[in-house]
Amino acid sequence: MNAEIIAIGSELLTPYRRDTNSLYLTEKLNQLGVEVIFKIIVGDNREHLVAAARLALARAELIIFTGGLGPTEDDLTREAVAEALGLELHRDPEIVARLQQRFAARGWKMSANNAKQADIVAGATVLPNRNGTAPGQWINTRYDGRGRLVLLLPGPPHELQGLFEEQCLERLRASLPQEFIATRVLRIALMPESQCDARVAPIYKRHADIQTTILAAKGEIQLHLRTRAASAQVAESRVDALAAELEQELGDFVFSDNGESLEQIVGYHLQMRGATLSVAESCTGGLVGERLTSVSGSSRYFRGGAIVYSNELKTEFAGVPKGLLKKHGAVSREVAMALAEGIRKRCATTFGLGVTGVAGPGGGTAEKPVGLVFHALADERHTEVLERNFLGDRERIRWFASQQALDMVRRKLLK
Amino acid sequence: MNAEIIAIGSELLTPYRRDTNSLYLTEKLNQLGVEVIFKIIVGDNREHLVAAARLALARAELIIFTGGLGPTEDDLTREAVAEALGLELHRDPEIVARLQQRFAARGWKMSANNAKQADIVAGATVLPNRNGTAPGQWINTRYDGRGRLVLLLPGPPHELQGLFEEQCLERLRASLPQEFIATRVLRIALMPESQCDARVAPIYKRHADIQTTILAAKGEIQLHLRTRAASAQVAESRVDALAAELEQELGDFVFSDNGESLEQIVGYHLQMRGATLSVAESCTGGLVGERLTSVSGSSRYFRGGAIVYSNELKTEFAGVPKGLLKKHGAVSREVAMALAEGIRKRCATTFGLGVTGVAGPGGGTAEKPVGLVFHALADERHTEVLERNFLGDRERIRWFASQQALDMVRRKLLK
Repeated sequence: MNAEIIAIGSELLTPYRRDTNSLYLTEKLNQLGVEVIFKIIVGDNREHLVAAARLALARAELIIFTGGLGPTEDDLTREAVAEALGLELHRDPEIVARLQQRFAARGWKMSANNAKQADIVAGATVLPNRNGTAPGQWINTRYDGRGRLVLLLPGPPHELQGLFEEQCLERLRASLPQEFIATRVLRIALMPESQCDARVAPIYKRHADIQTTILAAKGEIQLHLRTRAASAQVAESRVDALAAELEQELGDFVFSDNGESLEQIVGYHLQMRGATLSVAESCTGGLVGERLTSVSGSSRYFRGGAIVYSNELKTEFAGVPKGLLKKHGAVSREVAMALAEGIRKRCATTFGLGVTGVAGPGGGTAEKPVGLVFHALADERHTEVLERNFLGDRERIRWFASQQALDMVRRKLLK
Repeated sequence: MNAEIIAIGSELLTPYRRDTNSLYLTEKLNQLGVEVIFKIIVGDNREHLVAAARLALARAELIIFTGGLGPTEDDLTREAVAEALGLELHRDPEIVARLQQRFAARGWKMSANNAKQADIVAGATVLPNRNGTAPGQWINTRYDGRGRLVLLLPGPPHELQGLFEEQCLERLRASLPQEFIATRVLRIALMPESQCDARVAPIYKRHADIQTTILAAKGEIQLHLRTRAASAQVAESRVDALAAELEQELGDFVFSDNGESLEQIVGYHLQMRGATLSVAESCTGGLVGERLTSVSGSSRYFRGGAIVYSNELKTEFAGVPKGLLKKHGAVSREVAMALAEGIRKRCATTFGLGVTGVAGPGGGTAEKPVGLVFHALADERHTEVLERNFLGDRERIRWFASQQALDMVRRKLLK
């Protein structure tokens, strides 16, 4: 089955608002084996809406409209879809009564315009909306002699998602041929995309029955594997086999084969070892700590540390000798090591992490250019240090530095 | 003039990739006074592409295609647009030669498929692409008897943006009626959207010649004002007048009338006063420091501080007495104040900020529920403290806590 998604709302045609519902819906539809062939964004304009609806009805089997179901005069989805289908709208007295109750429960009187949310396309099934006033509609119909399924869903993402999961998912599954989808996400840290692609393409190309998508983000590559089969077991074992081959090729560059983030994986390994971590951050200014503590339960292995943005605080909090700072400069291999060792002692943790670099755009020199970052990781016996030259703007350099620092901890714990 | 944007690429119909080019283009077009009436996302499918092109040509005056200009067999934009317009494609030998040079300069031999990037729609102006191999095309034509402007632009955002700014902006401006647009963005911290709307709607509704858009994000509301007039002076003084009225109504909730972020504004005020800041963060885990240091030059007023995720480190780095932690608990008014005062002394800064709370989802109690956060700001003579109960998930609670902490510093410096 193929689908078209039509997002409705003039605000989606401004530079400030983007349609995110279609990403959610695409993921859910793909999991059911439905492919999305068009996504349309149209303003609150009845003529445009009817034209878009007619075109979609002519080419897609499933058409999902999101938005435009509210009570204001700008909310035109019901009218436009009824017009495109050549069907009547009728006002459902039960829904009107429920709307009135909803308002009364809050001690409000319902204004007259709200009643239009009870207008239902002839033959449609009403889809109750637990999180809002406007119900959705499920319309099984024909257009130009061909069977069509049309869904009207509310625009606010939490309303749409609740309603889709409670009212649409099972109904859709039941109306589709029985098929099982298996997916796997491999996440890879700090490997150039071209290098990754060159190594994995020969492998996944041998598996034509698995759809492989490569996505590169800052300091990370994701390999999304997806296949469908008549049984769950066949689909699962198929992606398992490819995932295993890819992991063997990429080795310890793969940090997760189940979608977990790098900070989750670092936390997982620390907890397994009963180990603890502290950080002393200069150029990242708290970003490494922020990422580590974004994981719920991180207090079990992360103690905290210091944001040592000034030289004085490098000495005060991590005990970096003033002479060392003077001799090598704050951005140096020696100071990174002293930060890691010093913070580890002060926080009494198993590991200490030190990061110092030039995030830019100012502050670079010929000898120490913007993007130069030193990362150090200390344990009781040994301190390792990594020097990197990251390209890009301040935000990108800081992100890569935090990624490299977390990856050092991960690799240390793998050993 | 109205415009339609057609984004091309099967990857844009997956759950993983969204079209961001259209937001950039919409902003640029709006600034020129061009309204976007439709946005279409279509896969690498010639039949679908031709249909989308024909429909757009029937209803919009300016049609911008993004993507599908590369060398692979999936890149079909040129062929589809030529077919929809009923025009021929011809291969431009000059572009072929330039492509060959580009490859030769890197010591590579050009593969044959690259030559299709030199295929030009009859009558089109070639738009050189400094950042990539595929040039854009500017096609001034007629469709069904009506004048149409069709632009073919490359898909990678940095290629598209470079090419649009260098090759399209001035050409477009010259082909449009002379008009000036003035815009203003007011940013408002930590005010409920409904309250803000109730206060500002009566004001901006009196200014029908200014388009006002309210956008609410986490802990912040933005009011976007936009007007057009025959002279820049008229447009500017019009938005100035409304901005002044709105600022008077909202008072010190407005933290910026020029688009600056809260962390930039805090930095600006600190620098103006020659003051310095340090932080002791528990539940935010480094987020306040990360936000402050995301601003280039922040070392002039931000010294650093401590991530005091464990109780031991609250004592070690900020000198919070163990007895105080035992008596009141880590999440308490008293500990927040001790964190602010202690970190201020240790870092020898003008101000010290302390944040402690329950970010969740675990760790809440009846007395101290998830979302409870204490924020304290200390100077030499006085420490103020704010208690807040934030709703939402871990990420939202941490963000609101950082927003509240930064806003305390801003308000302190306004006095």
